[in-house]
Amino acid sequence: MSYTVQVVIMPLKELLDPQGKAVKGGLENLGLKNVSDVRVGKNITLQVDAENAEAAKAVGEEAAKKLLANAVMEYFEVTVL
Amino acid sequence: MSYTVQVVIMPLKELLDPQGKAVKGGLENLGLKNVSDVRVGKNITLQVDAENAEAAKAVGEEAAKKLLANAVMEYFEVTVL
Repeated sequence: MSYTVQVVIMPLKELLDPQGKAVKGGLENLGLKNVSDVRVGKNITLQVDAENAEAAKAVGEEAAKKLLANAVMEYFEVTVL
Repeated sequence: MSYTVQVVIMPLKELLDPQGKAVKGGLENLGLKNVSDVRVGKNITLQVDAENAEAAKAVGEEAAKKLLANAVMEYFEVTVL
């Protein structure tokens, strides 16, 4: 069966996120002043052929660990949709 | 009150996603051969000060429309967490 696996990768909360800071500045310039913090990460969807949802999730976690996320600077969450 | 608003931005389904294709190739090289499609987008979280969840969502949608998403190539989904 084919599962859609969502991998969300975000910068670690302890680290500064310069891209998020730039977006916050841009929003302020556009008049959106009630945004106090912005963090920018990645959202990756994988179509995985697997026997069941757990196996599909395991593939997503392996992909995140081995290729998609940089554990030094990012954390990730894997969800089967 | 402060709300966490999540904006997910993905390339339109009708369009090719070269970044996703590159990731798929990388996963194949790592031995993950049961991934049939990959799409890479952005996940942006905003901390929004608003009176209620609907107002916070409206800020997220305005931010996505005015700055974060390119409507020609991307679609977005806004969720209040």
